[in-house]
Amino acid sequence: MAKRFAVTALIYGLTQVSGMYTLYEYAPSGNSYKLRLAMTQLGLPFKRINLDITQGESRTPEFLEINANGRVPVLVLENGERLSESNAILWYLADGTPLLPTSKLEQAQVLQWMFFEQYSHEPFIATARYWVYSLGAEDEYKSKLDENRPKGYAALDVMEKHLTSNEFFVGNTYSIADIALYAYTHVAEQGGYSLAAYPAIQAWFKRVEAMDNYIPITQ
Amino acid sequence: MAKRFAVTALIYGLTQVSGMYTLYEYAPSGNSYKLRLAMTQLGLPFKRINLDITQGESRTPEFLEINANGRVPVLVLENGERLSESNAILWYLADGTPLLPTSKLEQAQVLQWMFFEQYSHEPFIATARYWVYSLGAEDEYKSKLDENRPKGYAALDVMEKHLTSNEFFVGNTYSIADIALYAYTHVAEQGGYSLAAYPAIQAWFKRVEAMDNYIPITQ
Repeated sequence: MAKRFAVTALIYGLTQVSGMYTLYEYAPSGNSYKLRLAMTQLGLPFKRINLDITQGESRTPEFLEINANGRVPVLVLENGERLSESNAILWYLADGTPLLPTSKLEQAQVLQWMFFEQYSHEPFIATARYWVYSLGAEDEYKSKLDENRPKGYAALDVMEKHLTSNEFFVGNTYSIADIALYAYTHVAEQGGYSLAAYPAIQAWFKRVEAMDNYIPITQ
Repeated sequence: MAKRFAVTALIYGLTQVSGMYTLYEYAPSGNSYKLRLAMTQLGLPFKRINLDITQGESRTPEFLEINANGRVPVLVLENGERLSESNAILWYLADGTPLLPTSKLEQAQVLQWMFFEQYSHEPFIATARYWVYSLGAEDEYKSKLDENRPKGYAALDVMEKHLTSNEFFVGNTYSIADIALYAYTHVAEQGGYSLAAYPAIQAWFKRVEAMDNYIPITQ
């Protein structure tokens, strides 16, 4: 992607390039990774601006002008419009592409899994990884981790049940519902979760990782 | 709605009526109210089945077959398919109606506000109402209420800022983004929040309540 963009920029002699997305992100976060993965798979060039949220860089007065809710990721569109909320951005990127089914029911099912991810999964699985892996503060957050753990495992149970009889989350084809759920699930062990009891989830990881133009969270 | 449905049922001599939505709900919850309000405004007949979540009625083996995540609301469609997650159901109901804008960007903005509602608003504002108003357990939950309060007010601040220069959340027309945010905000005081410092939110309440076929949460 970067290479293709560099060539395009060279041809047009551009230093500031319009017609390109800008992603404000905290690179290690699953929410930001969702968008890098989707944009790479869709062949959409993007520029990355990293904010270190462990240092409060998403709560500065300058960034609050970009997102009043003080969170990343934010995607700046080609026309300058800004979108926040990772799963809403995924929808925007995927609409009209093979990453979003076209039937009304399947589109609602994609949203169902994405709201499940933000309400019943991310607050327990992503936060554990943030406290343990990003902040290195497992001891400080022990009581919160203990409180969240059963809720995180409950979300994994729901996923395991679904994946026991389905290849992917909606319509048995890879979609943004898979991207949204893969992002934090595949690194849940960095937050102290064990995935040993989840064979269907592990098999699904392999299917996601075999998709064209897959990139890892570290990229 | 009920009256019109009753007449239709009479004409066709039906006791069990297909071609009608069934809503599994906890009637006092804002998430369930969102769907009653949208279906009433869209003229869609529906049957209601109440589950008392304070008594664990959404976690029974029977209900877990309907929603493995053990939560209401769930909407059973005319063809027997089931959808969960209130905002995904709102999308399904509103798609193709005046309650959902048609442009790609505005649709993403609707989703942005609905994900904001489920991630940054509902966990702090709805839960407070549940502990204080539904369970009558303000003392038992005092430390959690104290912890959540600043996060709930932060969400209200984001809404107030937006509504200071906008009539509604997206495209200055009433949409499911307004329904999603109105549901718990207009009863936030039942969870101990004060809305006195939020004049733009209060003015927006009046605009929502003036819409055709508005019904209150108690209905």
